[in-house]
Formats: sequence, structure tokens, C-alpha cells
Amino acid sequence: VSASPFDHPLLWRLLGDDEVARHLTAAAELEHMLAFERALTAAEGEEGIVPEAAADDIVARLADFTPDTDRIAEATARDGVVGVEYVRQLREWVGAPNDKWVHFGATSQDLVDTALVLRLRPIIAALTGRLTAVATRLAELSHAFGARELMGRTRMQNALPIRVSDRIAAWRAPLLRHVARIEEIAPRLFVLQLGGAVGTLDKLGDKAAAVAARVANKLDLAVAERAWHTQRDSIAEFAGWLSLITGSLGKIGADVALMAQAGSGEIVLRQGGGSSAMPHKSNPVAAEVLVSLAHFNATLVSGMHAALIHEQERSGSAWTLEWLVLPQMIMSAAAALRSGAELVSDIESLGREN
Amino acid sequence: VSASPFDHPLLWRLLGDDEVARHLTAAAELEHMLAFERALTAAEGEEGIVPEAAADDIVARLADFTPDTDRIAEATARDGVVGVEYVRQLREWVGAPNDKWVHFGATSQDLVDTALVLRLRPIIAALTGRLTAVATRLAELSHAFGARELMGRTRMQNALPIRVSDRIAAWRAPLLRHVARIEEIAPRLFVLQLGGAVGTLDKLGDKAAAVAARVANKLDLAVAERAWHTQRDSIAEFAGWLSLITGSLGKIGADVALMAQAGSGEIVLRQGGGSSAMPHKSNPVAAEVLVSLAHFNATLVSGMHAALIHEQERSGSAWTLEWLVLPQMIMSAAAALRSGAELVSDIESLGREN
Amino acid sequence: VSASPFDHPLLWRLLGDDEVARHLTAAAELEHMLAFERALTAAEGEEGIVPEAAADDIVARLADFTPDTDRIAEATARDGVVGVEYVRQLREWVGAPNDKWVHFGATSQDLVDTALVLRLRPIIAALTGRLTAVATRLAELSHAFGARELMGRTRMQNALPIRVSDRIAAWRAPLLRHVARIEEIAPRLFVLQLGGAVGTLDKLGDKAAAVAARVANKLDLAVAERAWHTQRDSIAEFAGWLSLITGSLGKIGADVALMAQAGSGEIVLRQGGGSSAMPHKSNPVAAEVLVSLAHFNATLVSGMHAALIHEQERSGSAWTLEWLVLPQMIMSAAAALRSGAELVSDIESLGREN
Amino acid sequence: VSASPFDHPLLWRLLGDDEVARHLTAAAELEHMLAFERALTAAEGEEGIVPEAAADDIVARLADFTPDTDRIAEATARDGVVGVEYVRQLREWVGAPNDKWVHFGATSQDLVDTALVLRLRPIIAALTGRLTAVATRLAELSHAFGARELMGRTRMQNALPIRVSDRIAAWRAPLLRHVARIEEIAPRLFVLQLGGAVGTLDKLGDKAAAVAARVANKLDLAVAERAWHTQRDSIAEFAGWLSLITGSLGKIGADVALMAQAGSGEIVLRQGGGSSAMPHKSNPVAAEVLVSLAHFNATLVSGMHAALIHEQERSGSAWTLEWLVLPQMIMSAAAALRSGAELVSDIESLGREN
Repeated sequence: VSASPFDHPLLWRLLGDDEVARHLTAAAELEHMLAFERALTAAEGEEGIVPEAAADDIVARLADFTPDTDRIAEATARDGVVGVEYVRQLREWVGAPNDKWVHFGATSQDLVDTALVLRLRPIIAALTGRLTAVATRLAELSHAFGARELMGRTRMQNALPIRVSDRIAAWRAPLLRHVARIEEIAPRLFVLQLGGAVGTLDKLGDKAAAVAARVANKLDLAVAERAWHTQRDSIAEFAGWLSLITGSLGKIGADVALMAQAGSGEIVLRQGGGSSAMPHKSNPVAAEVLVSLAHFNATLVSGMHAALIHEQERSGSAWTLEWLVLPQMIMSAAAALRSGAELVSDIESLGREN
Repeated sequence: VSASPFDHPLLWRLLGDDEVARHLTAAAELEHMLAFERALTAAEGEEGIVPEAAADDIVARLADFTPDTDRIAEATARDGVVGVEYVRQLREWVGAPNDKWVHFGATSQDLVDTALVLRLRPIIAALTGRLTAVATRLAELSHAFGARELMGRTRMQNALPIRVSDRIAAWRAPLLRHVARIEEIAPRLFVLQLGGAVGTLDKLGDKAAAVAARVANKLDLAVAERAWHTQRDSIAEFAGWLSLITGSLGKIGADVALMAQAGSGEIVLRQGGGSSAMPHKSNPVAAEVLVSLAHFNATLVSGMHAALIHEQERSGSAWTLEWLVLPQMIMSAAAALRSGAELVSDIESLGREN
Repeated sequence: VSASPFDHPLLWRLLGDDEVARHLTAAAELEHMLAFERALTAAEGEEGIVPEAAADDIVARLADFTPDTDRIAEATARDGVVGVEYVRQLREWVGAPNDKWVHFGATSQDLVDTALVLRLRPIIAALTGRLTAVATRLAELSHAFGARELMGRTRMQNALPIRVSDRIAAWRAPLLRHVARIEEIAPRLFVLQLGGAVGTLDKLGDKAAAVAARVANKLDLAVAERAWHTQRDSIAEFAGWLSLITGSLGKIGADVALMAQAGSGEIVLRQGGGSSAMPHKSNPVAAEVLVSLAHFNATLVSGMHAALIHEQERSGSAWTLEWLVLPQMIMSAAAALRSGAELVSDIESLGREN
Repeated sequence: VSASPFDHPLLWRLLGDDEVARHLTAAAELEHMLAFERALTAAEGEEGIVPEAAADDIVARLADFTPDTDRIAEATARDGVVGVEYVRQLREWVGAPNDKWVHFGATSQDLVDTALVLRLRPIIAALTGRLTAVATRLAELSHAFGARELMGRTRMQNALPIRVSDRIAAWRAPLLRHVARIEEIAPRLFVLQLGGAVGTLDKLGDKAAAVAARVANKLDLAVAERAWHTQRDSIAEFAGWLSLITGSLGKIGADVALMAQAGSGEIVLRQGGGSSAMPHKSNPVAAEVLVSLAHFNATLVSGMHAALIHEQERSGSAWTLEWLVLPQMIMSAAAALRSGAELVSDIESLGREN
């Protein structure tokens, strides 16, 4: 038991996921924060908000900026957000006289939200790729064993025989719908956050829209009509998508665990987990983990919806709540897809020969 | 305090909603169950599964069938689903020899899920209409007061002045996105449920797809490649949409309650709630209710995601969990939109004259 | 599907509970509200806050007061709480000149919270009685079948044989602990709510404590050092207790559903639910319902904890959230204990003859 | 944004807690796992289950055992629990011929649950100490400023004046009740887990109870009548307690954030958080964090209640769900108490001079 099972030294290979975790490190966050600041200054230079030479100087200098993370952590305990001290360090690094143009017109939330969105792109790519891969492997299983018979069971009772392909089809179709769903959600999600102190880009005057368009373009993001500081619906919608994924995999896990019960002979798994007390056992561990992760995300999604109540122009409490919840939902979905892929690949046989 | 505040004799006008509640009555459910059974038999007659005369007889007789709801309630305590006794009564009503063709090849879940989906159509129409209406009223408020000044507040502290139009824009944009979202979700939701005992329409043989297409057509629903008995992702996704609505309105409610605090003068509401102890008070009751309903749906959405773990060919426990949760989420969204519309209409003035 | 399955005309016998539902009706609430008002006035008469004759007159007249519930519902939509209009009607009923002494010094929350607490007493008595009854029936089953063998299963796999008594002991012990727990919780719960407008009983001056003591005594409640208008911890703790009950019964339900699977022969149930498509089936409906109710309360308990954030001297939004959640948690626990008692009584045999 | 804010390099000083985190490290877990194994073998030696010399040898050798955590992590991905590989390493370390007596009669869950319970003791001591400390500081504030006036506010509106002591009393009483509650809960929690493969200690024969009593005694734990492998009610009850703590602190946080609004002058805080865009601001960051952590635990408590549905003799999925949820609930409570203590200590003044 440790604070986060996703990076617990003993549990991370059961419950974590290396590939996606990389995008949730502080290092990845800082890298994208820097990308935001450089894009901002460059855009402001191009629009004449920041003197061109100053902009060039800042963009160049920031290329090799390395933050003092301990000092950020310390300051964040007071400021409630990493951006304040981070920007202070950026300005110190750039030095007079151009330091005053660093982060010009922006606010911490622009920085942090944009750095989140930028990381959601590779995360979503990874998750979508895995959804497709699991669906493909399921299609292969259906090809190999689909014609075999399985006892159809309703309300935990034998009902009528079905074919293996029937069961697999019910596992697979939701995964493909999740791929379709994220294509609808993504355009609402990959949107630059840029609003300044109170979301109005007041310091940028009539250049606000032009600067935002340029920053968005540099970061390959869409630009919204205005900042979405307090409009968290697309983030909550994305959280729902993560939990739909874990839920659909949880159904597969529950089914596999039931099929793997002694005597059914309906599934043969390549390997199972051992027991410290019973060496003869072969436990469907990956299947159980899918059920756990489904319940975990089903639990957490509630927190993201509570965070929709984001008062006034910025809610410290609602925004912080997102930080507590969303990364773990991403990790759960990633771990479930990794674990689900392994489970599905471990299936050696399904159903009974007719 | 009563089991359901939505139809509590003392609280329903605060927390309920007449228009949408009509679609969630037992009467509405039974009406759509009957529509399903008639469409099914008609389709089976057209496809030659049921003798044409028998089909005509059944469709005609069912036109004035009235169920004995007490006996359904009694049987449901044993069967776990209303369909078993309901179909028994249908068959009794039709009588020999055609009774054997009633509900032919179908199962209770086909009946109950389709009757749900049919009612979701007017429900979604009502909710979408209200989303648009609230958005329109917000646009009018922005037109009237948008240029006025408001103190922008971040982390509950005065930050910088904004305009009333800035605040309203952040209230309004999510509502319009919710309208766009349901257009994406609806095609996945308005889908006939028809699978028979274990989802394979085994009794309909090679006419299964043709029958399903005809039933769907009669009910103006789409038809899926196969039954979605155990694929609950679109239902959970819809629940998420309901909670996005209440969450977005909860943000408006929280903002209004904060604006209505003494001394701010930033909002003038036509009327507020009284107090049994302090006759001088005018409480922003509708605003508070929006926050309550947002938290309620944020809580409940978790249950719909847990119900995604729908094992084997039909899970009594996961399906029953949906019945406990979804209708209330619908009512919360409906009540929030009703209450939100009233609140927004009660706004007489926003912001301060410049 | 209807707003509340607990009083849905078709589902209430599956998911509701008659005995406990009686305490959650508007009629029961109004009855206890009246008891509060009469006790308050009597106590204020005894302490000389209200002239003795006036107090006697009010207490006498209120004996046959019948509220106009439609007008309460209407006013509650505006006031956010039933107490305002209710008290207005009380005063009208009493008439001049004594009407001014009705509800003297109290506030709506005193009325509503005390009426809740008074109803929790019979509710808790009912639930506790059922916990004991189920535990007793389990002891009988253990006496009858305890020595028989059962395959012990861990991680859904056959592990080693256990005895039926081992399994039953794990079902029973938590139920007895729940009985012990409520004895600890009850003294924190059965506490008079009396604080007046802002919780300080300001209108009662130095008689405040004496009046509170007298009211509490008349209603057989404890008296707190001060009103608990904003201290909702004991209510949330009680909600947790309700969910512990449904969770423990959910474990029994999950076990029974697994034992009832075809072929195991480990359990014989007297009756099961039917199917509209498969007359041969006998579904462990009560067992499944226990799992559903466990998940429902596990979902809802989150809302009661969110309602702990009860700002300032009274939070309309947090308090309303309790009304949306708590009654349903009570009903879930009641229904689960009813259903659990039926399930356990339906067990005709457990385990295999050695 | 990182998987766990509690040990995120940039956020941990805002959202984490050093002292309590120490008990949730893998190192702490392994330390208590070792204590369990040594106590078990010693007890089995004393009872003659394990030959005395073998027991002495094992206990001595294990004193300087260091596990290979990488191999544990790797094996746990397969086994679903750390105990299998851990015990294998223990046996390897002890070597023939005594290796067969290591972990004799026990199972991984005995090891992991007992190691959890042993760490809950210092965790609870820390949390309880902080509850008392915050309550004491609140008493001091009440002593210093209690007689001052504050506007009492109900439903976010000015109601009537109260004294600062009234508000503080409502903050403080729940904290003291939480201290009382844990005294009731602790005896149900500090209980040895020892059941062997299927909870029956089958390998220990008629010495089972005696061995359990000795192990419990060595670890200063109580001993239950039987293993609580599947009886998770006391763990869920403890989770509820953690969320009551964060909820009560969330109310304080919400109140402080509202008091700290511009113009009220009702509270003076020693320091607030800065802003990257508005150097003049002083944000009530700690107050907001309390609200976030309250919502986070309110969200998570639902997962612990879902985990009560712990099927058969051990549920991999329900148990794993606890690992995902409980450590974070502990950290949230710890962080909230740390942050709450800081916030309360930062209060320089409350209320207005009369």
C-alpha cells in the first residue's frame, strides 16, 4: 500500500503503465510549459506586442532553461499553482531588461492548462492505438474460435448456447465506439488556453485574438473564442471517456474471470498469477485488475464532474481537484488497456469444440 | 425528507420537473412497452415469422390492452424485471391460439431497454430545448448588461475588472456545446434493443436482421449490428452528458449565489426565498439548488459507470443499478434546466453602471 | 424506469420497503414537525419565554392542525425549505393574538432537522432489528449446514475446501458489528436541532439552554452544547453506516449468485425469478438486487460526504444535497435488509454432504 | 499534473504530507511485512508447529533480510499481490532445510493486510494528534477573538450578527468528535489478519487460535475470532472516518475563503498565495486546498464502499481496489490536517472589533 499504486515500487508493474506515465511526469509538464512560454513570446514578437529583438532573445535563452524544481515545490505550497515561481525563475534566467516581456499578458492557468492539453495529445494517441490493438486481437480471437460454442448466461445462470463470436462481438464493439468518440471529443479538447489574469487577455488589447491564433498555430492547437479557464466541460467529458474505456474493459475482465472458474473449460489462459499458499493455483490476475480499474475510474469520474462547479474567473479549489483526479484516471485507462492487451493475448483458447 | 425529492409532495416544485417526469412514469413506460410489442409482432408478421393473420390479430388486440400493474409489481419482486409478468398478461389478453406468437423471439430486456430509449427521445428534446432557451436568455442578458463592469475574481479574491459579457460568455458556451454533444451521442443512443434470450435472436433464424430492421423502422430507431444487452457504454455516455449539464448550471448557480452576497450589488434578482426566522431575507434559492443538483449528478454518474461492468449475456445486478440511477440523473438535469431558466429569467440587472 | 425505483408502481416490491418507507413520507415528516413545534412552545411556556396561557393555547390548537401541502409545495419552490410556509400556516391556524408565539426563536432548519432525527429513531430500530434477524437466520443455517463442505475460492479460482460455517461466519460477523456501530453512532445522531436564525438561539436570551433541554426532553432527544446546523458529520457518519450495511449484504448477494451458478450445486434456493424468454430458468434475483443496492449506496455515500462542506451558518446547497441523497440511502439499506432476509430464508440447502 | 499529486515533485508540498507519507512507502510496508513474518514464525515455534530451532534460525536470519524489490514488482505483475515473490525471496534467504517453515500456514493476504494495519497505528496517531492540535489552536483563536462580532450568513446572505466564538465552535466540535470516533473504530481495525489460504488456518490444526493469539500479542494487535480476509467493513469504516476529517476541514476552508473575500475584513491571514499575473493578490490557497481535498475524499470513499462486495474467500478485484483508494484517502486526510493547521495558525485576526 502506497499513496499511488501507479508508481509504487512494488505495484507499478501490476497497476501502472510506463509509456503513458512518461507524459505525466513533472519533466514532461515542465517541457510543455516551456514550449508554451516560448510560443507565447514568439507570437507576441510577431504581433509587435513584445519588441522583436526582446522576443528573439527570450525565445533563444529559454531554449536551455532548467527550472529549480525544489524552489517551485516550495513556492507552490504558498501560491497554490506552479506557474508563479516558474515564471519568476524564467524571468530571472532571461534577466533585465527583457525579463518584463516573459509570460507577458498570460497567467499561470494558461501555462498549466495548455501544458496539460499538449500532453493529452500523445496520451490520447497511445490510448487510441491500444483500443484499436485490443479490438484487432479480439477480431483474431473471433476468427480463430468464433464458431465454437459457449454457454450463454444471463443473471449468472445458464441460459442458451451462443457462439464465441457473439461474446467477443459484445466485448469489441464498445472499444471501437470509444475510438469514434474521442474523434468527436478531441477538437473540443486540443484548444489553447490563453486568457491572462481574468480570462480576457486585457493586456494584449486588440492584438489578443491575433496573438492567441499564432500561439495556437505554433502549438498545433485550436483556438477558442475566449479562454476556457472556468469552462471545464471538455475536460470532464474526456474524463468520462477514460472511464468508459475502463468500464468496457472491466466487463471483459469480469467475463474472463467467470470463464476461468474451475470446471468451465471455456477459456485457456497462457499464464496466471501464483499464490503464496497454494502453488497449484493459476489466478486470472489481469482480468481482476480490469475490474478494479473500472471501479476506480467509475469512482473518480465523480470528482471531475464536481469540479465543473468552477466559480467566478478561477476556482482554486475546483481546479486543484482536477489535479488530484485526472492524472489517475488517465493512468487507470492506460493500465487497463495495457493489462487488457496482455489478457487478450494470453487467451489460448475460447469456448468448446462443437 | 422523502425517498425521492423529485416527487415528494412538499419538495417536488423545488426539485422536480413536471414535463420530463411525465416520460418517467410507469404509464409512459407501459405505453412504450406496448408500442415495442406491437411493432415486433407486426414486423414478424411481415417477415413471415408469425402468420400474417395472427400478427394482425395480435396488433389489433393489443391496441386496447391495459396491464394489471399490481400483479406486475408482485411478479417483479420475484422475476427482477417487469417484462415476464407483463408478457404473460399480454398473452392472456390475446388468448389462444395466437398467444404463442406474442413477444416471439424477444426477451424482457428488449422490451425494457427499447421502452427506455423511446422515452429518451422526448426527454432529450425537452432538455435540448431548454439548453437553447437558457443560452438565448443569457445572450439577451449579455445584450442588455454586457458592457457593464464586474469585478473579476480568481481564487475568491478580487482580481481585475471584467465586463458582464465576459462572465456570461463563460456561462453560455458550455450550454451550446452540450447541444452539439447530444447530436453526436444521439445516434448511438436511439438504437433498437432486440436480441432475444441471449442477444442472438436465435429464434428468428435468418430473418433476424430483417425483423430487427422493420421493428426499428416502425419505432423510428436505428438498428445495431447486434443487440446491446451488455454494451452499456452509450447509456453511460448519456448519463455523463446529463451530469455535464447540471455541472455547467452548477457553475452559474455558484456564481449567482456569490454575486448575490450582500454589498456586492452585482446582481439584482426579481425574487428570492423567504426565511421562517428572518422576514427581511431574500435567498438565492434557485442558484443554490443548481449547485445541489450538480453535486447530485456528479455523485450519481459514478453508479452508471460502475454498471458498465455488465457480466456475461445479461447482468441482473448491473442492469438494476441503472434503474436506480439513470432516471434520477434525468430528473436532476431537467430540474436544473427548469430552475436555471427561472433563475436566469429572474435576473433584473447584472454588473455596475460604468 | 421511473424517477425513484423505491416507489415506482412496477418496481417497488422488488426495490422498495413498505415499513421503512412509511417514515419517509411527507405525512410522517409533517407529523414530527408538528411534534417539534408543540414541544417548543410548551418548553417556552414552562420557561416563561412564552406566556403560559398562550403556550397552552398554541399546544392545544396545534393538536388538530392539518397543513395545506399544496401551498407548502408551492412556497417551497421559492423558499427552498418547507418550514417557511408551514410556520405561516401554523400561525394562521392559531390566529391572533397568540400567533406571534408560534415557532418563537426557532428557524426552519430546527424544524426540518429535528423532524428528520425523530424519524431516524424508528428507522434505525427497524434496520437494527433486521440486521439481528438476518444474523440469527444465518446462525440457524450454520447450525443446519455448517459442517458441510464448500469449495473455498480465492480470486475466482478453486482453492481449498472450507466448511459452510466458515463462509457463513464471514457473512454474519459484519452484520453484528453494524449493530454495535449504530449504538456508538446513535447518541451523536439523536440530538435536538435548535438554534434559531443563525444557530445561536439569540431570541431566547439566557433561557436558551433551559428551553433546549426541555424540548429535547419532551422529544426524548439529547441536547447538544449548541445547534448543529452546519455540523453534518453525524449525518454523514450515519450515511456511511447505511452503506456498510448494503455493502455487507452485497457480499452475501455476490456469493449466493456465484454459488447458484449451474453445476455447483452448492446452494438450493426455494424460488428464483422467471424469464420471459426462458421458462426453465430460476434466477437468483434477490442476490443480484443486493449487489445493485450495495453499489447504489456506495455511489450515494459520496454525496453525503460532499455535503459536509456546509458553508457559513447555513448552506442551502449542501443541505438540499442531503435531501436528495439520504432518504434513498435509507431506502436502499431497508430494501437490502428486506431482500437479504428473504434470500437467506429462501436458502434450502448449502454445501455438499460430506 | 502527475499521476499522484501527493508525491509529485512540484505539487507535493502543496498537496502532500511528509510525516504520514513515510508510513505509506514501500520501505515501510516491507518493514512491517518482515515484522509479521518474524512474529508468525516465532509464534509457531512457541506453539510447536515449527521446530523450535528452525523457528529461532528463521527469526534470526530474517533480521537482516533485504528484499529485491525489482523482482517483487516483476512478479507482482503476474501474481497480483506482492506476497508470493516476497515469500519466495524470504525462503531463498533462509535456505534449506528451514525454508519450508517460513510463512508456514499463512497466505499473502495475511502478510499484506497485517502490514497495513500495523502502519495504520502510527498514521492514526499522527492524524489524531493533528485533530487535537487544530482544535486547540481553534480554542486559542476563540479565546483571543471569540467575543468579536461576525455577520452570520445563511444561504449566502447576511442574516444576523453572531460572535466569532459561535463560528469557531462549529468548526471545532466535529474535530473533537472525530477523535472520539477513532477510539471506537480503532479496536475493530487494529486486528491481526491471519487465516491462511482460505481463511481457516487449516494448516495449523488445533493450534490455530493459539498461534494467532501469540502473533497478535507480539504485534500488539487484537485477534479476531477468525480471519477478516473478506470482511472489509472496518477498513471501509476507517475510510469514512478519513473523509469525515477532510469534510470538516473543507467546511473550515470554505468559510475562510468566503471570509477572505475583499471587503469583508472579517479575517486577516498572515500570508496568501501569489499570482503570476497579479502581484497585488493574496490568495487563501490553504483554504481552497481544504475544499479540494474534502471533495477528493468524498469522491474516493465511494470506492472503498464498492470494495465491500468482496466475493468468496478472497476477491482479487475488490482487494486491489482498496490499494488504489485507501492510501490516497489517508494522504488526503494527512495533507488536509497539515494544511488546516497551517491555515488556522495563519489567522491573525477574526471578526470585527465591537
